[in-house]
Amino acid sequence: MSTRRLEAFTDGVFAIAATLLILDVHERGGGSLGHQLGHAWPSYLAYAVSFVSIAIAWANHHTMLELVRGADRTFLLLHGIFLMLIAFIPFPTRLIAEHVRGPGLGAAAIAYGITLTATAVLFNAIWFYAAHGRRLLREDCDPRTVSGITRSYLPGPWIYLGTTLLALWSPVASVLLFAAITLFWAFESSLFGRSG
Amino acid sequence: MSTRRLEAFTDGVFAIAATLLILDVHERGGGSLGHQLGHAWPSYLAYAVSFVSIAIAWANHHTMLELVRGADRTFLLLHGIFLMLIAFIPFPTRLIAEHVRGPGLGAAAIAYGITLTATAVLFNAIWFYAAHGRRLLREDCDPRTVSGITRSYLPGPWIYLGTTLLALWSPVASVLLFAAITLFWAFESSLFGRSG
Amino acid sequence: MSTRRLEAFTDGVFAIAATLLILDVHERGGGSLGHQLGHAWPSYLAYAVSFVSIAIAWANHHTMLELVRGADRTFLLLHGIFLMLIAFIPFPTRLIAEHVRGPGLGAAAIAYGITLTATAVLFNAIWFYAAHGRRLLREDCDPRTVSGITRSYLPGPWIYLGTTLLALWSPVASVLLFAAITLFWAFESSLFGRSG
Amino acid sequence: MSTRRLEAFTDGVFAIAATLLILDVHERGGGSLGHQLGHAWPSYLAYAVSFVSIAIAWANHHTMLELVRGADRTFLLLHGIFLMLIAFIPFPTRLIAEHVRGPGLGAAAIAYGITLTATAVLFNAIWFYAAHGRRLLREDCDPRTVSGITRSYLPGPWIYLGTTLLALWSPVASVLLFAAITLFWAFESSLFGRSG
Repeated sequence: MSTRRLEAFTDGVFAIAATLLILDVHERGGGSLGHQLGHAWPSYLAYAVSFVSIAIAWANHHTMLELVRGADRTFLLLHGIFLMLIAFIPFPTRLIAEHVRGPGLGAAAIAYGITLTATAVLFNAIWFYAAHGRRLLREDCDPRTVSGITRSYLPGPWIYLGTTLLALWSPVASVLLFAAITLFWAFESSLFGRSG
Repeated sequence: MSTRRLEAFTDGVFAIAATLLILDVHERGGGSLGHQLGHAWPSYLAYAVSFVSIAIAWANHHTMLELVRGADRTFLLLHGIFLMLIAFIPFPTRLIAEHVRGPGLGAAAIAYGITLTATAVLFNAIWFYAAHGRRLLREDCDPRTVSGITRSYLPGPWIYLGTTLLALWSPVASVLLFAAITLFWAFESSLFGRSG
Repeated sequence: MSTRRLEAFTDGVFAIAATLLILDVHERGGGSLGHQLGHAWPSYLAYAVSFVSIAIAWANHHTMLELVRGADRTFLLLHGIFLMLIAFIPFPTRLIAEHVRGPGLGAAAIAYGITLTATAVLFNAIWFYAAHGRRLLREDCDPRTVSGITRSYLPGPWIYLGTTLLALWSPVASVLLFAAITLFWAFESSLFGRSG
Repeated sequence: MSTRRLEAFTDGVFAIAATLLILDVHERGGGSLGHQLGHAWPSYLAYAVSFVSIAIAWANHHTMLELVRGADRTFLLLHGIFLMLIAFIPFPTRLIAEHVRGPGLGAAAIAYGITLTATAVLFNAIWFYAAHGRRLLREDCDPRTVSGITRSYLPGPWIYLGTTLLALWSPVASVLLFAAITLFWAFESSLFGRSG
């Protein structure tokens, strides 16, 4: 089975999940509209971090799928679960934006972190399933490209898991670290451009 | 008429219907945010079951359309009704998540079941319309593939109808069986991979 | 300019507008959930009529674009306005579903009718712009196909305008006629299949 | 890396952002439904201006991408930020529609203006990154086309910035100028068709 329609469905879910994030950006607090808009900066930041996270995941998925020659049913099933997690991101993003100044930030950060950790785990599962014994890879894939991608994907779940657990100690530090990781990955991949 | 743009419209509706499901995942009950998030597990489960159901329907549709050489207006009309039912799924999914602990679960399960049963009926109607006398099938289709697909699609409406009727006796059993059917189909098709 | 990306954008707007309709289907009234779901039948009917209307417009657009060899900026501008009207349909659909039993049905039916009339006018404008002097048509278009399409599109705006004006006299008759027109066009095009 | 899947993701975000605008069109004020619908005209106007703005940005993006032979990671990153801003447009659009008759119009117009100014800045950044030393341009691009595009894109951010600053003096004038700019660009590009 070719990957063409899988790409169409995947691109659709990524684009919709990213665009739906705007539905949870709202004015906050009281006073004049200018005051409310200023008060809502955590909403904008949460929107930006999640949008860029989804865009990075999309770009990485794009790079990966260019090495894959076709899909089988297990590959599709793993994609179904992966996309289910991508489409879940707007929910914990809203939780963080709403609870950033309250006692719920810890729970919100953990919900956000679990979602991103699970997304990274599934991303690795898709890649390992395709790359194990070169099961679904194109004939002409350079083995060094394959092992380079494997190395660059492996730390993702651990980094997200660590940042999630950090929320048990300091929710604010956890949330700031999620933003910093996103910023780092966005610039690292564009400045150095070799990690996949 | 080629099926290329039908695929684009279909992939769009599937991807949007699946991604819109997240709009109905909410915190529930009172207490701390952590407590509310724990209390909301039926929302997560309903989200996951419906997302995976839509993804399976998409994968089956994908498999079917690869055997079809072109569309006529009746084929398009049947698709219009089929997609109308796919796009309806978020509504009864929300009903189940909201009424899982209340007296409305029976009505919610019946609404969910009628939607899935009708979806499966239309899926069969599309296939039988295309396959009858090989009306819209590719020249090079293996007759055994065609009859294998026919056999694998036929039980779907009856299984969903039975699970729907079960809600008259026990709404909880009906809902659990819908989840189990989805899980079974997800794994069966990926482990054995021959049923279409 | 080729029409390939115009198709992608157009298919996207059609698919999203149709799928967003579900966000306005709600339980209505009081009592048990079963009672509320039964009471909400106008929501289901409005959902179905608008979904099928959008699907028919999509199929007609599909047929038309197969005759077009390329787009210029005016053609794109007309499409922008056409898609703006297609994406508007969920709003008056919700008005009809909410006001079907109240004194607002007349205003709702007129809002719905103006939207559909304007959509049909723009559809004709796109076609006449492309077909005038065969400005954007493929070289190999059969002149009889072109004039057949022209004849089949022309009555659309007048039929919708008449049905809209009927709401001034009887809102219920107007709404029923909109449903009947949709049903007729869905079946007529699939049963006879020659009007485009 | 080819631009094919970037187009798919981009078309998706544009189409969804434009179609989501309808979710913020509501009846306003009291009285009969007809009165409320008449009172809501700023919602319709804001919907139309933003929908057409997004459609124009899409058409310009389309024209630009036809000159680009491929994407690198920086090009993707710039697109990520650009699409994040496009998908943000529904939020300040709603603010303008809601505050058009109140004291918040100034803040709403500034929020709208900042969003459009930033969008135009990113659009220029994408183009200059691709065109600088012909980094990502097709071999067969006419240098005069390239410098013509550069000239036609450059004023965009300054025009939007000026219109935004106008809101400090007169919010109403600023909002009317945004509508006039959109109208002008829609017709200018379709009537003269050479600027972008």
